[in-house]
Amino acid sequence: MLETARERAMPRIDFWCEFASTYSYPAAMRIEARAAGQGVTVRWRPFLLGPLFFEQGWRDSPFNLYPVKGRYMWRDLERTCEALGLPLKRPQPFPQNSLLAARVALALDDLLRGRFSRAVYAAEFGEGRPIADRAVISDLVAGLGEKAEDVLARAESLENKAALKAACEEAKTLGLPGAPVCVTADGELFWGNDRLEQALDWATR
Amino acid sequence: MLETARERAMPRIDFWCEFASTYSYPAAMRIEARAAGQGVTVRWRPFLLGPLFFEQGWRDSPFNLYPVKGRYMWRDLERTCEALGLPLKRPQPFPQNSLLAARVALALDDLLRGRFSRAVYAAEFGEGRPIADRAVISDLVAGLGEKAEDVLARAESLENKAALKAACEEAKTLGLPGAPVCVTADGELFWGNDRLEQALDWATR
Repeated sequence: MLETARERAMPRIDFWCEFASTYSYPAAMRIEARAAGQGVTVRWRPFLLGPLFFEQGWRDSPFNLYPVKGRYMWRDLERTCEALGLPLKRPQPFPQNSLLAARVALALDDLLRGRFSRAVYAAEFGEGRPIADRAVISDLVAGLGEKAEDVLARAESLENKAALKAACEEAKTLGLPGAPVCVTADGELFWGNDRLEQALDWATR
Repeated sequence: MLETARERAMPRIDFWCEFASTYSYPAAMRIEARAAGQGVTVRWRPFLLGPLFFEQGWRDSPFNLYPVKGRYMWRDLERTCEALGLPLKRPQPFPQNSLLAARVALALDDLLRGRFSRAVYAAEFGEGRPIADRAVISDLVAGLGEKAEDVLARAESLENKAALKAACEEAKTLGLPGAPVCVTADGELFWGNDRLEQALDWATR
């Protein structure tokens, strides 16, 4: 997508999100409004945590591997969503396989990517819908006014698969410890829904 | 320590802190002022994370076991301390052995426990002093106007050692996922320096 001169001059944040990640849900639902209020452009950067976790020796979500942490997280997420007025329905199983959603997000242009991403999070964590399901993803794409069949074909093209792999490599190089992470233009990482405000303040200071 | 009728009526927070824990430092340095502003009494609950981590299969700090997480944490802590105007000097080695500090904190009365705890955190993370060192702890106790020899003898009595073990058992029963954790009277857990405000709001709502 072509950037206008005004957009180029605006501070920007890369919002690295993983569709299976719980705290990415509230962050994704509120980042655009907050960023707009501070004149910050958000670049949606879908990626997969799996390869990064694999390198740490984790073969599952740390929230499953460490149940004490998992129990805390679900209760904390409940309180977070309640405070934001967001519905919360725990997806089964957790984590959801997020590969298709990530590929589709990457295959869309910048504007649609944000809208699609929010739709995925709302379906998954607001309604408990299975986002690994092709029919669910097609439905969400159609909801954007796009032709699902075309978008999915693009999503599963070799180029797009390679683009997602490259994004995961970039995430690794950046040293992302989890998701969501806001990365500012000067390379600062802000991890978690609860670091959104600090990330935006940093980007505009 | 005897509570006055007014203190009994005030909302209270249990502040579970581990002297080796990085994020406990900024939380410990600011909790009293914030709590006082909202009329909340803070009960300092020193404990050890070691036994809890052991049960998760961790034989070291997760920040050492998972270097990506550790790198993020140190940078995030730097920013946090800078924003609060707190000095930060990384203690070597990390984590420090916090057993003696925890025993001494527990052997002091409620009022001195808070003052001692802040002194330990300031020495450890503000000046990089080795808190496993008996001379350092004695020095901090003397700084409170107490006789170090007496306090250390009390700290290492069988009763006090048993009291610390009981605190660690209680922490396990409560399901503390790390430190610091604020626990409200109705049993809600708020983990991390960045949950202090929410914990206080919850306690007073």
